[in-house]
Amino acid sequence: MRSASYDIAIVGSAIASSILGIVLARRGLSVVLIEKDQHPQFAIGESTIPQTSLMLKAMALRFDVPELDRLTSFEEITRNISKACGKKSNFGFIFQRPGEAHRLDECHQLGVARNNCTESHLFRQDIDAYLLQTAIRYGCKVHQKTAIKDITFEAAGVTVDTDRDLALRARCLVDGSGYVSFLARKLGVRDPEARLRTQSRTIFTHMIDVKPFDDCVEADESALPKLAPWHGGTLHHIFRQGWMWVIPFNNHPEAMNRVVSVGMQLDPRRCPKPADLDPLDEFRGFIADYPEVKRQFADAKPVREWVSSGRLQYSSSKTVGDRWCLLSHSAGFVDPLFSRGLSNTVETLSLTAEILLAAAADDDFSEERLRPLETLQLSTLDWNDRLVHGAYVSFRSFELWNAWFRIWGLTQVFGVLRLARAFLAHERSRDPAAFGPLDRPALPGALTPEHPEVATLIRAAHETMEAVEAGNLAEPAAAERLFALFRAAPFLPPSFPFTDPAARFGRQGLSAQLEMDHWLVEQLKAA
Amino acid sequence: MRSASYDIAIVGSAIASSILGIVLARRGLSVVLIEKDQHPQFAIGESTIPQTSLMLKAMALRFDVPELDRLTSFEEITRNISKACGKKSNFGFIFQRPGEAHRLDECHQLGVARNNCTESHLFRQDIDAYLLQTAIRYGCKVHQKTAIKDITFEAAGVTVDTDRDLALRARCLVDGSGYVSFLARKLGVRDPEARLRTQSRTIFTHMIDVKPFDDCVEADESALPKLAPWHGGTLHHIFRQGWMWVIPFNNHPEAMNRVVSVGMQLDPRRCPKPADLDPLDEFRGFIADYPEVKRQFADAKPVREWVSSGRLQYSSSKTVGDRWCLLSHSAGFVDPLFSRGLSNTVETLSLTAEILLAAAADDDFSEERLRPLETLQLSTLDWNDRLVHGAYVSFRSFELWNAWFRIWGLTQVFGVLRLARAFLAHERSRDPAAFGPLDRPALPGALTPEHPEVATLIRAAHETMEAVEAGNLAEPAAAERLFALFRAAPFLPPSFPFTDPAARFGRQGLSAQLEMDHWLVEQLKAA
Repeated sequence: MRSASYDIAIVGSAIASSILGIVLARRGLSVVLIEKDQHPQFAIGESTIPQTSLMLKAMALRFDVPELDRLTSFEEITRNISKACGKKSNFGFIFQRPGEAHRLDECHQLGVARNNCTESHLFRQDIDAYLLQTAIRYGCKVHQKTAIKDITFEAAGVTVDTDRDLALRARCLVDGSGYVSFLARKLGVRDPEARLRTQSRTIFTHMIDVKPFDDCVEADESALPKLAPWHGGTLHHIFRQGWMWVIPFNNHPEAMNRVVSVGMQLDPRRCPKPADLDPLDEFRGFIADYPEVKRQFADAKPVREWVSSGRLQYSSSKTVGDRWCLLSHSAGFVDPLFSRGLSNTVETLSLTAEILLAAAADDDFSEERLRPLETLQLSTLDWNDRLVHGAYVSFRSFELWNAWFRIWGLTQVFGVLRLARAFLAHERSRDPAAFGPLDRPALPGALTPEHPEVATLIRAAHETMEAVEAGNLAEPAAAERLFALFRAAPFLPPSFPFTDPAARFGRQGLSAQLEMDHWLVEQLKAA
Repeated sequence: MRSASYDIAIVGSAIASSILGIVLARRGLSVVLIEKDQHPQFAIGESTIPQTSLMLKAMALRFDVPELDRLTSFEEITRNISKACGKKSNFGFIFQRPGEAHRLDECHQLGVARNNCTESHLFRQDIDAYLLQTAIRYGCKVHQKTAIKDITFEAAGVTVDTDRDLALRARCLVDGSGYVSFLARKLGVRDPEARLRTQSRTIFTHMIDVKPFDDCVEADESALPKLAPWHGGTLHHIFRQGWMWVIPFNNHPEAMNRVVSVGMQLDPRRCPKPADLDPLDEFRGFIADYPEVKRQFADAKPVREWVSSGRLQYSSSKTVGDRWCLLSHSAGFVDPLFSRGLSNTVETLSLTAEILLAAAADDDFSEERLRPLETLQLSTLDWNDRLVHGAYVSFRSFELWNAWFRIWGLTQVFGVLRLARAFLAHERSRDPAAFGPLDRPALPGALTPEHPEVATLIRAAHETMEAVEAGNLAEPAAAERLFALFRAAPFLPPSFPFTDPAARFGRQGLSAQLEMDHWLVEQLKAA
């Protein structure tokens, strides 16, 4: 049996594993990646949010990896990596009622542009290949088509036995292989029942010939203060039973991709997974009740097999131990709502890299040293669960969803604010250490990690939604309670009229911009 | 068990299967494609030649499928499909001697440009996905991740049992799954020992950080009448023991791909497959003897696992039967030399489509009806075997290779000439039937199917090489015998000084162009 030794062994070669490999190798550690399949590889986790891109940009500066900066906007990606990715200029949410076209006062849109850059719909097969090649260029050893037969921990290290007559030894093992994680199963750390409140199952695929939703709308939308067409961003259809994503890769003039990513998440308690129905038939049956959605998909054809899951949520009782840790989606997962999956991954990666680099320097990969990662991961899951669970509860009425939408809006503003603070500090000092505080926030894993007052509001809002779910509170009263929380909050940003139930679009125009800039300056001064 | 019925079932979903599906569906047949894996998918068969592109263009016109026309030049592909494909402006051949830089008078280059278009290095994962999506758009049903459990022939049709609780019935089954063909194995038609004279094995992969060969050349090449840099096309290193391809996808300013395809073919009788050597180590060990090649790959890193094969050649005793046929590489394969794989595939596809369409119209899928396909396939294999086998024999000396190179050059000119004739007829009549004669040439499957006099020369030249291989003829005498054949041939085109052993590049300049145009006009008049 051949064998080889490395500082760090990473299982998996998708985006998280490759980025971690790049950063560790860049800092001089020897790294091996172990992948049971091979690239090119399909993956979801396609829609970025400003936190994703800014955190990646911070890592690019902090660890001196310019290749990561190439991923931080649609424009950079399209110039440097692939013409197959889509443009995300906005988040759109359409509240759908059976048998009706959507109502013009029941849709939301928030922009995500910053400084002439937009967010992206990552065509993951191209992005993941680019990152894997970058990892190889920085010196990572990669074994594809290599399955794990066993993992053995000893005092001095860990040995991964593979099906290729090859034993890989490392000082520490990081499992980034996701739900299927061999390590999580071997150690028995997967919770038998996810401890998350969200309950959803998913069916998803890639389709061609999906119409831009803007061409399917019955009413005249020209008077709506939309920033951009729905097709210019990530579109969410909101249903009583769940929600659907529509992520176009073909929504710009330079597009070299006909594909649109489509996925539907349903509460399995209300819509159990059908035993004998093809996912395409389930999909067509479901959207038949929604005339505009039906029109959007009238000509649509899947170009790959559907994935149809049982309950999506999973979690782990432990995510780190002596010489091992579970990375990102190997530790747990809530739901793709609000595109937080990639963002959470990237935020966790930064801390993972810092911890492993320090542990390697001290030659101490004890559970104790890795513990802050577990704290962050479990907390991230819990907070995302609150945000997503609250949303699913709110889907029962537009009134309630209209209120909960604002909770999500707050997480966006304060999520970016803490990053802006770090970039400002870096701009002044030119010291990569300026990004260090991002890993040590007041509330690790919270949706607003450096704004406890906002976190308190979110907790209170979520308790309201729990009361609704328990049948102890009517929807109108719950919505009113949320608006009362907004009215009482002294910290609301001027980007959106949070306290006005009629507001559904971000504020536009010069005065809104100036007010927001002024608010930002005040916030950054306060730091 | 669910079941569904189609006119034609096609196994596989790579380039040949998808194109056939597109054409048949375009003409109104119901078609199902059955793929055991899924896209995106790695594949080789990356380098086009003018025959590939012109035959595809003919099919685009003949069957009214403009999407096929998008594949017929680097420029069209880069504008419409993917920025990850490479440019092929030329065929380059460098004769390598151990321990030496190549000699400036021991390299060849022929251009492949036509009317501002160049040939392509197809990044197959993007091309194959585009074609599969096009097949879906034309109405083909595609089942990916679907393995075949059994195939049963009945009088009225054929049933494919799959591992997905799904039986697919069809009037005729086409197996385009290549070497692994379930059908070929089930029917026992694979020849136990390929009846081909060529003997080669291969190791290949995709690499990054391969240097342009032009940067690795020791001598000053500026005086060479090269058309383009070596890096601007498909480069072949010729060794005594075999040859290597270097196919860059990164050789133009718009490139969004860092990858270069690299493969080495070796005669297993001289270089048996090593039992305990990693292919990368074998590769590095081999090129260590060739200083310029070593330099070209000094920084190169594979980005996927190497494929290392035993003897590459295989063939089948039968390729058609009642209600079935083997498509292209399911029937047999010789060697990737001269990039003829894709070209042979496309030439066969045209006839396959015509035969199946007529058979469907008459509801007669008998072996008799499909026989012309078998005739074409077996003959194509035999003729390619002559061309490639002669080349491998010639590799033992530059003198001999320099003569055999001209045989290949002739096949290029006359291969294109017959296509030019069909396009001329189509331009006059605007009748798609003008392409029909391409399927009924004088010598089906020959390298020059409509030029028996050239075929006779090639046969004679190949007999000379057989005499060399048998030890009955010395290399200088053999080379002289080939040049004597050229001198005696009244039909040589003026594009290349075939009879001058010192000539190694295509003729350039206005008078060469005018002479070639004049020759072409005369040839086309003669038709």
